[in-house]
Amino acid sequence: MELVTIDDIRAAADRIRGAIVRTPLLASPWADEDRPLWLKPESLQPIGAFKLRGAQNALARLDEASRRRGVVAYSSGNHAQAVAYAARSFGVPAHIVMPDVTPQIKIDNTRAYGAEVVLVPIAEREAAAYELVEKLGAVLVPPFDHPDVIAGQGTIGLEIAEDLPDVELVLVPVSGGGLSSGVASAVKALCPSAAVVGVEPELAGDARESLRAGELVDWPIELRARTIADGLRSQLSELTFAHLRTRLDGIVTVSEDEIRSAMGVLATRSRLVTEPSGAVGLAAYLHRAGDLPRGRTVIVVSGGNVDRALLADVLGA
Amino acid sequence: MELVTIDDIRAAADRIRGAIVRTPLLASPWADEDRPLWLKPESLQPIGAFKLRGAQNALARLDEASRRRGVVAYSSGNHAQAVAYAARSFGVPAHIVMPDVTPQIKIDNTRAYGAEVVLVPIAEREAAAYELVEKLGAVLVPPFDHPDVIAGQGTIGLEIAEDLPDVELVLVPVSGGGLSSGVASAVKALCPSAAVVGVEPELAGDARESLRAGELVDWPIELRARTIADGLRSQLSELTFAHLRTRLDGIVTVSEDEIRSAMGVLATRSRLVTEPSGAVGLAAYLHRAGDLPRGRTVIVVSGGNVDRALLADVLGA
Repeated sequence: MELVTIDDIRAAADRIRGAIVRTPLLASPWADEDRPLWLKPESLQPIGAFKLRGAQNALARLDEASRRRGVVAYSSGNHAQAVAYAARSFGVPAHIVMPDVTPQIKIDNTRAYGAEVVLVPIAEREAAAYELVEKLGAVLVPPFDHPDVIAGQGTIGLEIAEDLPDVELVLVPVSGGGLSSGVASAVKALCPSAAVVGVEPELAGDARESLRAGELVDWPIELRARTIADGLRSQLSELTFAHLRTRLDGIVTVSEDEIRSAMGVLATRSRLVTEPSGAVGLAAYLHRAGDLPRGRTVIVVSGGNVDRALLADVLGA
Repeated sequence: MELVTIDDIRAAADRIRGAIVRTPLLASPWADEDRPLWLKPESLQPIGAFKLRGAQNALARLDEASRRRGVVAYSSGNHAQAVAYAARSFGVPAHIVMPDVTPQIKIDNTRAYGAEVVLVPIAEREAAAYELVEKLGAVLVPPFDHPDVIAGQGTIGLEIAEDLPDVELVLVPVSGGGLSSGVASAVKALCPSAAVVGVEPELAGDARESLRAGELVDWPIELRARTIADGLRSQLSELTFAHLRTRLDGIVTVSEDEIRSAMGVLATRSRLVTEPSGAVGLAAYLHRAGDLPRGRTVIVVSGGNVDRALLADVLGA
């Protein structure tokens, strides 16, 4: 299986420059002395999550004819908004299939970016998306299972290597594996002595189990759906698994309480609003220190789209 | 009176590069269509506020002998942490005089940066600081009333002009006037057609009154202390007044409720934790649209050091 290369990622960076925020590395003076810490706040992208990078790269790669016919995506989360936002920036029609149980605010946001939202029962969303693709001759933009998407997310790793060439550890959330595959591909190519470690919720620890087993292990969605980290409930694909088994140095899991507590630390000490998925890296830094290499650490804070009530609850606790 | 020039600000930018975060402009897709909005999130500086820029520039300007003798500052807020942090980066001893009623967390943070904290009754802090200056032969770093501090804060305006040369409106909080003087000096020099408008809490509207009167008007501290925006309770000095009367295009005030509401919007829509002082610009954008020029708008989000309980309260409301 062909893996994404550093050249693919460099090309993606050229394509998406100007359309995404080149996020700074934020020093964290409160960190442990022997583990200086920087945060890569992808929560500051205009849609509030890293997903814009992959979507923007995928859209940029389409030819003119495809752009006219438009794109389709299915997602209830950040990918929906990413594709809608990226499509608008290219003037491309976007159809986003969402489960009819999606919170109204996410539907409204996706519509606000100019996308047509198609609501269907949750079990039908994949079929509905493929139906649209066929009917419109549109291109499906998958949330992680595509080299262009992986290369787009990899630009985060490229920027980390540019800003902190002597980084020693990168912590990155793992869900479907698009973000982690991209970041690991860039960092291991440019900073080969740095470790890249994935982080998952214990309650959705399927990637760790797959990597240990050496093959994809299936966790039913009922199990994965238990975690508060709603962005980390997907499973690896063959493509992302192939990246992670050769490029990831390890994977750790964190508990629900550790995730909530890390959200509070990010808000009060780093002034960042994060969604639970965006806080797993700091949860690992704070609670899995014994399982991690020491040294200069960068945490990818993947997103900040959190319900106001959950954020208030985490802060009030 | 000699005012800070764009060359002073450019020199400051060269001096502090690498020691501060070059904050990105964050696009705000939820803004009004005819008033596209970007945020300049100074809350992401390592101490959580813009004050680091001025302190870093002031420290960088000291000669070797002065650096050995050290610096003194009096502050209970962000300036204390800024001077402590900047001094440490130069290996300079720092003494920070704080009122004995300062919240413990702020004392602890200032000490964590290696500064010696001197606690005194609030009425004695200025005298105590000058006593230390005399005793140690140290240099006092004032919070705003100094050209080096103004030039350091002005680097924010320089970055705005670099990143969005066709900006049409900049909204900036006004307290002692260091930030607003610096930002106005840079923006009016580089983007002369842009308007720079200051924002104050109604309950500490002394700068607006001074600018209208054409002379400094004194508001007793009991009045200014009423606002929740604890970073905006200072008064202009002769030096900052001289900058603002020639370089600011206007000044608007906002209510306490508007400030709290803007904090909520910044947290949920822009994923930024802000202190009340950092939210006044957005409060003006949202609630004083009729008093502001339309067009491409940048808001300086000055800081994010807020009590966890207040933030939870604002979000829960």
